[in-house]
Amino acid sequence: MATVGFLGLGIMGHAMAANLVKAGFDVTVWNRTASKCATLVAAGAKQAATPREVAESCDITIAMLADPAASREACFGKDGVLAGLAQGRGYIDMSTVDDDTAREIAEAVTAKGARFLEAPVSGTKKPAEDGTLVILAGGDRSLYDEAGPLFDKLGKKRVFLGNVGQGARMKLVVNMIMGQMMVALSEGLALGLKGDLDGEQILDVLEAGAMACPIFKGKGPMLLRGDATTSFPLKHMQKDLRLAVALSEQLGQSLQGGSTANEIFKRANIAGHGDADIAAVYRVVQ
Amino acid sequence: MATVGFLGLGIMGHAMAANLVKAGFDVTVWNRTASKCATLVAAGAKQAATPREVAESCDITIAMLADPAASREACFGKDGVLAGLAQGRGYIDMSTVDDDTAREIAEAVTAKGARFLEAPVSGTKKPAEDGTLVILAGGDRSLYDEAGPLFDKLGKKRVFLGNVGQGARMKLVVNMIMGQMMVALSEGLALGLKGDLDGEQILDVLEAGAMACPIFKGKGPMLLRGDATTSFPLKHMQKDLRLAVALSEQLGQSLQGGSTANEIFKRANIAGHGDADIAAVYRVVQ
Amino acid sequence: MATVGFLGLGIMGHAMAANLVKAGFDVTVWNRTASKCATLVAAGAKQAATPREVAESCDITIAMLADPAASREACFGKDGVLAGLAQGRGYIDMSTVDDDTAREIAEAVTAKGARFLEAPVSGTKKPAEDGTLVILAGGDRSLYDEAGPLFDKLGKKRVFLGNVGQGARMKLVVNMIMGQMMVALSEGLALGLKGDLDGEQILDVLEAGAMACPIFKGKGPMLLRGDATTSFPLKHMQKDLRLAVALSEQLGQSLQGGSTANEIFKRANIAGHGDADIAAVYRVVQ
Amino acid sequence: MATVGFLGLGIMGHAMAANLVKAGFDVTVWNRTASKCATLVAAGAKQAATPREVAESCDITIAMLADPAASREACFGKDGVLAGLAQGRGYIDMSTVDDDTAREIAEAVTAKGARFLEAPVSGTKKPAEDGTLVILAGGDRSLYDEAGPLFDKLGKKRVFLGNVGQGARMKLVVNMIMGQMMVALSEGLALGLKGDLDGEQILDVLEAGAMACPIFKGKGPMLLRGDATTSFPLKHMQKDLRLAVALSEQLGQSLQGGSTANEIFKRANIAGHGDADIAAVYRVVQ
Repeated sequence: MATVGFLGLGIMGHAMAANLVKAGFDVTVWNRTASKCATLVAAGAKQAATPREVAESCDITIAMLADPAASREACFGKDGVLAGLAQGRGYIDMSTVDDDTAREIAEAVTAKGARFLEAPVSGTKKPAEDGTLVILAGGDRSLYDEAGPLFDKLGKKRVFLGNVGQGARMKLVVNMIMGQMMVALSEGLALGLKGDLDGEQILDVLEAGAMACPIFKGKGPMLLRGDATTSFPLKHMQKDLRLAVALSEQLGQSLQGGSTANEIFKRANIAGHGDADIAAVYRVVQ
Repeated sequence: MATVGFLGLGIMGHAMAANLVKAGFDVTVWNRTASKCATLVAAGAKQAATPREVAESCDITIAMLADPAASREACFGKDGVLAGLAQGRGYIDMSTVDDDTAREIAEAVTAKGARFLEAPVSGTKKPAEDGTLVILAGGDRSLYDEAGPLFDKLGKKRVFLGNVGQGARMKLVVNMIMGQMMVALSEGLALGLKGDLDGEQILDVLEAGAMACPIFKGKGPMLLRGDATTSFPLKHMQKDLRLAVALSEQLGQSLQGGSTANEIFKRANIAGHGDADIAAVYRVVQ
Repeated sequence: MATVGFLGLGIMGHAMAANLVKAGFDVTVWNRTASKCATLVAAGAKQAATPREVAESCDITIAMLADPAASREACFGKDGVLAGLAQGRGYIDMSTVDDDTAREIAEAVTAKGARFLEAPVSGTKKPAEDGTLVILAGGDRSLYDEAGPLFDKLGKKRVFLGNVGQGARMKLVVNMIMGQMMVALSEGLALGLKGDLDGEQILDVLEAGAMACPIFKGKGPMLLRGDATTSFPLKHMQKDLRLAVALSEQLGQSLQGGSTANEIFKRANIAGHGDADIAAVYRVVQ
Repeated sequence: MATVGFLGLGIMGHAMAANLVKAGFDVTVWNRTASKCATLVAAGAKQAATPREVAESCDITIAMLADPAASREACFGKDGVLAGLAQGRGYIDMSTVDDDTAREIAEAVTAKGARFLEAPVSGTKKPAEDGTLVILAGGDRSLYDEAGPLFDKLGKKRVFLGNVGQGARMKLVVNMIMGQMMVALSEGLALGLKGDLDGEQILDVLEAGAMACPIFKGKGPMLLRGDATTSFPLKHMQKDLRLAVALSEQLGQSLQGGSTANEIFKRANIAGHGDADIAAVYRVVQ
């Protein structure tokens, strides 16, 4: 069985790595703050000191990092993945990054004779824990196929979308839609409550109709309770909205609704809710 | 068993009246263009020449009309419902109207000693045909209870929301959210296609994740096919968005996302897509 | 010389009436809070107890009231203008109102054989004091001509725009543009200051270029100082933006920029800045 | 007297270089399409084959190029400015570029011992021709002072804003405001005309009031005539709006009005009006 490396043990990464360990894979983990490795090591994982060490010792190395800068650093930085990747090895970046970042990493990895797959996910903390993420892959098809048994433990669905960059684009498309839906839900609840409707009844009516969806079912009660326990940090959603707007500029697509959602999430971010859950967007809409 | 009147046989009304006839109720129908009554009469309904005649002959009269103006005309106009309502009779307006219209009708009906219930619905053509609408009622509680057997044939869920006006408000809240979701879906598909993603894969990914919902499942393929066969006319959605914005002014709630969706639907309406389905909003987003 | 009545002594009305008194006209004033008449009475004006008394005793009665509701009340209310207007007398409403209000007042006044002119103004406190308003008239042409000597003391420019309703529309068009310009200025200053530019230099550059205008020259320094001393109450601007959006719905014109400005002013209003100057919109943009 | 180089002879650059030639400066010009140099050479300018040649032969080299990519190419490209700049020489980039581009060029120029000034301008074709631009400078103060006699022939006002990047920022702030004003004017005219107002009267009223400004006076009649003869290409305005939105992301400033204007200009750009004047934004607003 292939050896697996895992870089980045944030909310998402920790849950994903834990699922791989639990499934019996031979997993080596690394995190910038090394102490976060402890639980996984206790559960059977090995720990490495640098991304380079991980890449040197594993057949397939997976990264799940916070933003494009972290992805670049883990790959290109001193003692980064690139320094450790041998010919034929696989590197899968599951972080959400922009087109340029994904392509630059892909080119560098490929230039070393290794294989690259971008595989950002749709889904946040709970699906990461439950292994029910949706995996959006682009890049090396053989690596996508080899990683199948790993992906089966991480997600309930995976799609192969073509060249590197297409996974990232799909992620932005999906999260841009999600951002607008959070704005819609927030405004709907705020308007309804000011109009003396009952919040629970609003959610019940949504649940009974054509807009019934897991995100409203999950976030709706959080909005009503004022709960913003983080599963998907608001600042990451704002980043995705920003990248979606930038993509729309590049492709020549107007994005009035997406831009509006971006500005509202930006206001929430500026107001200090960046580390809270996306549910906190409600606080600047109320 | 109570006799039932039904005013307005548009896309929604015709399907709803048909369900009542099919269920064996004693139904009397009226429509401004009388020829639309033919199928229902053939199925066993009686036909009346004016709303007044309907109200005079039925225990409970239901209206499902296109807009506030049509609701007012059917009630207050010459040979309208008001002229025919006897004491104790019930009038249920299931059209989507603004607060003021609903309340003025309620007051006039109540002043005659009759009972009034507003009961706008969430759901369009298909749920109307299938009897799976969500019914949002406000007004006379006894009439709500008496109409239960009728509502059971029209919808899969009903809620009683309090005074007249609350049903209309709930409808606006729900449709405002739907309007934003249609914009989000349209922008997401347009952006993805310009970015060389596959439209079906975008819908598959949405269906597998937290945003999976009947509206995306239903409208998504229509957008990709360029199909805008009307089940929910775009001009009615724009009207609801306009009324939601007006409600937000009245209640002091900012509605940036809703206003943006309203402007986009308004552009689609101006561009001549008012009678097409809400799916046609995609045509001005592409 | 004609006798002149003046109803409404708010920020605008008081300054306007004072200019008429100072110019030597025979002026009778009324205000809901009667104490506001004192200064003008001391300067030579007569005071009346009701709008009706004013209309009974003056050849031309001018109104400058806060909103459509106040205009309707002054006209149609108990002891209102309508009760006092004799045949041939003139009533000029200079308040900013919606189409419907202006037309209903016009019809009622005309039905009594009196003449009506709507004449809302562009310009706030300072131009009102200086007699340099821009007067936007619609309605009875003979009354417009007769009122010329009065208008000369109130404004530096007047235009006759046709039927009643056209003056109100021009006002909404102009104020909708002003609302967007205040948002643009606010966002520009906020962005520049966060980018370490000097606020005064930003205003200097604007003043030297193609966007140089009295409103930026007047409000710019107020924004920088955090000064929102009221000359044009923010809540009135928000009302005008709301009416402009409503007009755009009626006429089938998309108004994305105007709707966005409306939502931003609405947020400022909700945040409690309604009685402050429009300069206070900066507080929710920063 | 210093010898002056001029790179880029588009709408703006040609008019600016012509003013320098006319003022008697010793000017050497370069343009990617060499034929555009002819008129200036006929008027007394020298012509060079590459930016490098210009930089080698002139004390101060000025660039006025279309976008960040062209600025980078002229500087860093084969036979670019950088290859020709000797110690102490001056390079002034008057193009509108983003922060990063300006700073990278500045660093490269400085590293060679030469001096750099960014100096984007506010103003389009007419002010360029008339020598009445507003010059927004950042970078080397001694170069700013030495270039004074040149700037005097190009502009009516110049400001020194500090470090490199600040000139670009000021330009984005100013153009972002201009973009919103063009949207406001377009929506105001479109709304007014649909409401049976006279377009000329709308412009007269604007000209008489607090919003009177050269941009409305210049562009207003163009909008009414359907004239979009290019002085400021729409695609460049959209680029500036895009960069302003990107700057707002970087600085943490919400920019709802600016984002909305950006989307509207983006739609105009996508609709094929990119090479027309910014006045063409009216075509997607109508």
